[in-house]
Amino acid sequence: MPPSATWHPLVAAALAEDIGPGDATSCALIEAAATGVARIEAREALRVCGLELAAEVFLRCGASLDRSSTDGADAEPGDVVATIRGPARAILAGERTALNFLQRLSGIATLTRRFCAAVAETGALILDTRKTTPGWRLIEKYAVRCGGGTNHRSGLYDGILIKDNHIAAVGSVKAAVERARSRGPLALAVQVEIESLEQARAALEAGADALLVDNLPPPHIAEIVGLVAGRVPVEASGGITLETVHEIARTGVDRISVGALTHSARAVDLALEWTERSGS
Amino acid sequence: MPPSATWHPLVAAALAEDIGPGDATSCALIEAAATGVARIEAREALRVCGLELAAEVFLRCGASLDRSSTDGADAEPGDVVATIRGPARAILAGERTALNFLQRLSGIATLTRRFCAAVAETGALILDTRKTTPGWRLIEKYAVRCGGGTNHRSGLYDGILIKDNHIAAVGSVKAAVERARSRGPLALAVQVEIESLEQARAALEAGADALLVDNLPPPHIAEIVGLVAGRVPVEASGGITLETVHEIARTGVDRISVGALTHSARAVDLALEWTERSGS
Amino acid sequence: MPPSATWHPLVAAALAEDIGPGDATSCALIEAAATGVARIEAREALRVCGLELAAEVFLRCGASLDRSSTDGADAEPGDVVATIRGPARAILAGERTALNFLQRLSGIATLTRRFCAAVAETGALILDTRKTTPGWRLIEKYAVRCGGGTNHRSGLYDGILIKDNHIAAVGSVKAAVERARSRGPLALAVQVEIESLEQARAALEAGADALLVDNLPPPHIAEIVGLVAGRVPVEASGGITLETVHEIARTGVDRISVGALTHSARAVDLALEWTERSGS
Amino acid sequence: MPPSATWHPLVAAALAEDIGPGDATSCALIEAAATGVARIEAREALRVCGLELAAEVFLRCGASLDRSSTDGADAEPGDVVATIRGPARAILAGERTALNFLQRLSGIATLTRRFCAAVAETGALILDTRKTTPGWRLIEKYAVRCGGGTNHRSGLYDGILIKDNHIAAVGSVKAAVERARSRGPLALAVQVEIESLEQARAALEAGADALLVDNLPPPHIAEIVGLVAGRVPVEASGGITLETVHEIARTGVDRISVGALTHSARAVDLALEWTERSGS
Amino acid sequence: MPPSATWHPLVAAALAEDIGPGDATSCALIEAAATGVARIEAREALRVCGLELAAEVFLRCGASLDRSSTDGADAEPGDVVATIRGPARAILAGERTALNFLQRLSGIATLTRRFCAAVAETGALILDTRKTTPGWRLIEKYAVRCGGGTNHRSGLYDGILIKDNHIAAVGSVKAAVERARSRGPLALAVQVEIESLEQARAALEAGADALLVDNLPPPHIAEIVGLVAGRVPVEASGGITLETVHEIARTGVDRISVGALTHSARAVDLALEWTERSGS
Amino acid sequence: MPPSATWHPLVAAALAEDIGPGDATSCALIEAAATGVARIEAREALRVCGLELAAEVFLRCGASLDRSSTDGADAEPGDVVATIRGPARAILAGERTALNFLQRLSGIATLTRRFCAAVAETGALILDTRKTTPGWRLIEKYAVRCGGGTNHRSGLYDGILIKDNHIAAVGSVKAAVERARSRGPLALAVQVEIESLEQARAALEAGADALLVDNLPPPHIAEIVGLVAGRVPVEASGGITLETVHEIARTGVDRISVGALTHSARAVDLALEWTERSGS
Repeated sequence: MPPSATWHPLVAAALAEDIGPGDATSCALIEAAATGVARIEAREALRVCGLELAAEVFLRCGASLDRSSTDGADAEPGDVVATIRGPARAILAGERTALNFLQRLSGIATLTRRFCAAVAETGALILDTRKTTPGWRLIEKYAVRCGGGTNHRSGLYDGILIKDNHIAAVGSVKAAVERARSRGPLALAVQVEIESLEQARAALEAGADALLVDNLPPPHIAEIVGLVAGRVPVEASGGITLETVHEIARTGVDRISVGALTHSARAVDLALEWTERSGS
Repeated sequence: MPPSATWHPLVAAALAEDIGPGDATSCALIEAAATGVARIEAREALRVCGLELAAEVFLRCGASLDRSSTDGADAEPGDVVATIRGPARAILAGERTALNFLQRLSGIATLTRRFCAAVAETGALILDTRKTTPGWRLIEKYAVRCGGGTNHRSGLYDGILIKDNHIAAVGSVKAAVERARSRGPLALAVQVEIESLEQARAALEAGADALLVDNLPPPHIAEIVGLVAGRVPVEASGGITLETVHEIARTGVDRISVGALTHSARAVDLALEWTERSGS
Repeated sequence: MPPSATWHPLVAAALAEDIGPGDATSCALIEAAATGVARIEAREALRVCGLELAAEVFLRCGASLDRSSTDGADAEPGDVVATIRGPARAILAGERTALNFLQRLSGIATLTRRFCAAVAETGALILDTRKTTPGWRLIEKYAVRCGGGTNHRSGLYDGILIKDNHIAAVGSVKAAVERARSRGPLALAVQVEIESLEQARAALEAGADALLVDNLPPPHIAEIVGLVAGRVPVEASGGITLETVHEIARTGVDRISVGALTHSARAVDLALEWTERSGS
Repeated sequence: MPPSATWHPLVAAALAEDIGPGDATSCALIEAAATGVARIEAREALRVCGLELAAEVFLRCGASLDRSSTDGADAEPGDVVATIRGPARAILAGERTALNFLQRLSGIATLTRRFCAAVAETGALILDTRKTTPGWRLIEKYAVRCGGGTNHRSGLYDGILIKDNHIAAVGSVKAAVERARSRGPLALAVQVEIESLEQARAALEAGADALLVDNLPPPHIAEIVGLVAGRVPVEASGGITLETVHEIARTGVDRISVGALTHSARAVDLALEWTERSGS
Repeated sequence: MPPSATWHPLVAAALAEDIGPGDATSCALIEAAATGVARIEAREALRVCGLELAAEVFLRCGASLDRSSTDGADAEPGDVVATIRGPARAILAGERTALNFLQRLSGIATLTRRFCAAVAETGALILDTRKTTPGWRLIEKYAVRCGGGTNHRSGLYDGILIKDNHIAAVGSVKAAVERARSRGPLALAVQVEIESLEQARAALEAGADALLVDNLPPPHIAEIVGLVAGRVPVEASGGITLETVHEIARTGVDRISVGALTHSARAVDLALEWTERSGS
Repeated sequence: MPPSATWHPLVAAALAEDIGPGDATSCALIEAAATGVARIEAREALRVCGLELAAEVFLRCGASLDRSSTDGADAEPGDVVATIRGPARAILAGERTALNFLQRLSGIATLTRRFCAAVAETGALILDTRKTTPGWRLIEKYAVRCGGGTNHRSGLYDGILIKDNHIAAVGSVKAAVERARSRGPLALAVQVEIESLEQARAALEAGADALLVDNLPPPHIAEIVGLVAGRVPVEASGGITLETVHEIARTGVDRISVGALTHSARAVDLALEWTERSGS
């Protein structure tokens, strides 16, 4: 998990927007002294992610969460992933927010797992992108890791990726790579987006650490992979789906980045079921 | 749009997580004095949502956004929805974050529009739920409105919704409705989730303002709608999809709430294209 | 009590403004190792409110508070409501801030209790208003509940109240109520401020959920109450005092809202007395 | 006014708690394009305070405030103190919060003015205390100045006030004053609360800069004033009211501190009246 | 130590800027379950300051710090000042930030101790100034106290210091002192910066509580000290170094303020050494 | 400059800690309407850094700053670097905070310039470290760039640096480098701290991107440089001073990192002088 200081504010914001001045229904209907036990269960096959966030949600509501699974593990329909204990009001207050975190993050992990499975035999890595939900960058990238994926850079600050606009501004692939080397942060690798064999050759000669081919057809990608011949990693990107990822992987690329992992994963089905209730 | 004070912190967080200490690539490759103009274009048919957030993103980066569409309008592939002007570094710094907001919110608006279209002839309203992205509650509900949908309560504080756990705690539908009336906030309507004709009858007699039927088959829903006979609105919910929503609507329910509007909308395709560049 | 996340920032701000860089007197005169025990006592008859805030104040200063009363209970002069234990410096640092919270909130609860007592035989409810101390909305509304009062809406977001300006903008009471019904949030009741029998009739016909009569003389209020005949609740407001509230209640109104509960309650007398001291 | 950074957060909190996700009534009934002009008028004789806060409230809502009075000026019933212009929704959104600030702060200024008038002939200064509304310390002290009063220390950090507990901890008035001198911040005067002539004598000998007599009867105060003979200022405090303040002042004390200025001032009557409306 | 609420945000900011999304090296190389023990040792003779900040740093990282020295104590090369225990990743994450706090604050304490030692025989106090590191005011002033120094005012709010610009604005030393007396906060002493015997005389006559001579040669200072003859404290300031401070002190001034204590102290040498490691 | 969002909070904190509730002296002595003009002048030869922070300080106080120099330029004694215009109270309120920023950051830039000059002929780069003032990381690294230095990683997140503890945990240099490559972020270079020729050889073979030699004597460093023979950059560190840096550079190392640039730079002398005053 990323450092808690990076996601605690999101948990606070999430509870504030859902509970606001108070849970009108539960405050009217549930006695303050009533307690309960509830379980969070998988309702479909999924890869679990987000238990620490769910635990923090319930903690802030006054209940406690015990895990019976871990982030990165698989769950089958009916599997219990966590048990919640505490005041009934606290469980009801945290339920929706905790599930919203779990369902979205597990959805990303589950989708990532599918992409990884689809290319497993090829050795290609599945990477995420910066197409994440604003405010969720680090926890979505964590979900990708839980799904077996590999993280691309976290943001604009911890990786150099030279795109067409940068090349246009500098004048050539060669000039762009050299300038990135000499003026960019010392510890950052320099990746270049290239659109042709010629650009690939220029990037290699200029000393690029990795290449990116965006939205090229598989045969074209294969040609570039052949040219590079393993000297640096080649990454493919551009609207890649579960249907097309295997064909892309078979071109021999080392890395495949998939925006859909984070921008279009659907929430998976997890539900909270009460198992005990007392004193209501 | 919700009050800016409610979403400005999310914009700040989004930029902070993407840019952090700085854009390593652009600072190395783009001169501080270089300027540019870029357009945000639709790449598929979609309902626009999020222009004010995108404008705020670019403003904070030092560029400015002019709209050529409005939230709630439809766009065809190729339509320009906004034009950005300013320092090239500023445009590059804000690009990904602005698109992440626009693509997700327009995705929700677009999906909502489809659900609304699917039930248009029936008069049923399409409602959202509390299954929103944590941190995004108010802007996602705004996206639902842009798509033609209707908002359910914003959170636990501005609507009373008595669910099975509440009824179990109090003992009966009747007791639950009465207690909500007498102890709940004066200005909030009381909606009850019911599972049978008998519960529906009890809720009506106890004076409920609206009913909710969750995960019942259409014929069962129709029976309840018949019993209620228009005295209070009836809402249906539970895993409803674009494929099933029309059948649900034909039962005569007044409202259909769809968690997928917000928890599983895919991002729609919007892209930023440069049209001018100078001084790089 | 409202969720702690809603009032913790106020406690932090209160301590920061009183203590700032440090308690100059105590740091000079009291040894860090000195400890003490002190009691908070009522100096007049009052309704207690604010113990959880006082406890949080002392907790943040490094002392602990044990309650011997509860919010919503009555205290006679001399009654001990809480005992504080801890470092002498911590008790001295928190004393004024804790008392400031307790005295103001107990003042509101005490005044509310008096208003409730004044109308007890009539069955009318005493309501608060939005005339609260900025920054204190939720805790002052809690104090009203502790005094036996009933909360009106928390803010502009959780209740619809159509006032003269809204009616003027829309054109008629009828149009205003209908528009509020169709465009306002689904779960919010629609209350209308009316000034005449005619407006009352129009509001009822348009389906208003509650009426408000502001600053009308009792006979006029009684006439409106007669017209409404119990179909919806009628609320009276407008400069109502402990002297006039009984006459208002006798008109038969269901609810009486009193701005003075929160905007003009005087602080009640509670004081901190040391009972033990050691190691100074 | 205190630095804006010290009270801007309170304005933000006040608007957030009143408006939250949005003004349900106005969003339903008032068109976004409607504009208006409104005046804030005094409804009773009062001393104005809080115009800069009210201006900030309306600014954040999207309207603008023009002053026709100034903080510290007197207003008669019917006097206009400010005019608001802007979108009708913006004026309605800010109205209650702006008035809540103005009514409370003007209430404090008005009450302070009365206390000052009551002792005008004696030359005694009227001082505030630390019995302020938590979160409002600096603006309430500003309101006291607007009313003609003088500020005591802002908090525990910018003045030394040795009370009975401090003396008990150190052992004697003499030891307490000496320790405060040698260990306390260099730039802070040392004031001592004394209960007898003997203690007054000891404090003077030890070099106290000012004395405080709390809850002593006027003859006793006069005796102490006589002893001190103008060498240092003498302050009286303890439940002083408009009825008793003159008698206290006639004892010859230099300063009279009154907790009621801030803890029990009632809100004065100011109201917002619309004068123009268009485009609704 | 100043109240923790005043420096906790700095600790949070310090960790955020160093760790950000995570410690790339340790997350890759150190197992999550690995634990360790490390010691913080002095590498030169120094005065310790900052242990509570270091403890907070490690606490937030998930490790714990046990002290074997205290703030204000002296350490010789090789002395262990604290021991850290916890997950190896936590110790590595907090190491640099904790040392950065300790090295800077101990550096200030150590330099202050040297200045105090240089004037020990004279009885002059060594004071700090407002030339502190922005964001560090209170903890740097604490470090000065740990070094044996005395704090000047904390900021512009808790002491009156009339400088040349103030005198120029008012017209004369006399007018400036009188106005400060009558309009300034009651509890603050009035110090005046004077440049000549004549000004010193005027300040004394006007009732100044303390004088400041800035950048005058020692004989000139001595003359002023002679004139004042102990009636009020005299402070000297202006580029005073370890080399010159003794000569300044011998003029008989009571206080010597030294900006270099905080603006130019070098970091002292403290290092973290591992003593145990397991489970890596 | 780093993004303003990263340092605005520090400016706010700095003003809050210096001004707090208000400038007691200026509020008493300077009329609100008085205005002035003042210049910030260099009092010694220095490299300028921090003008944007100083401008922000004065802006927040209500004055404006015009630059007559730029960050990264050199100034001689007497050179004016900026002119401030505005209310006299605003200039006095911002003076100390603005100078504190300028003096410290210019001090770092000036010291860095000296280190760069000392090695100019060798081609070695002067690097900073993570030994920065907590809360100041990004602006101190900016000051290093203004002085001609080169930034090492910003924090633990944007560069991999394998130290002795990491090697000990993994078992060998080879294993450590390989694990960093396979498990660390894709875009980060892998630097290894080595202590011997043997370790250098192992690191090169394992594919390290850069080496670090810490606290080795120059001949030993030269030997390692010889072994590496330009294949990867070699960095030297460890207590390097202006006296020793040239000898280190002559070993042929590519980079020299100097903690003293940020942890022990002394403030340079810049002062604010008034040139006009009116209406006081």
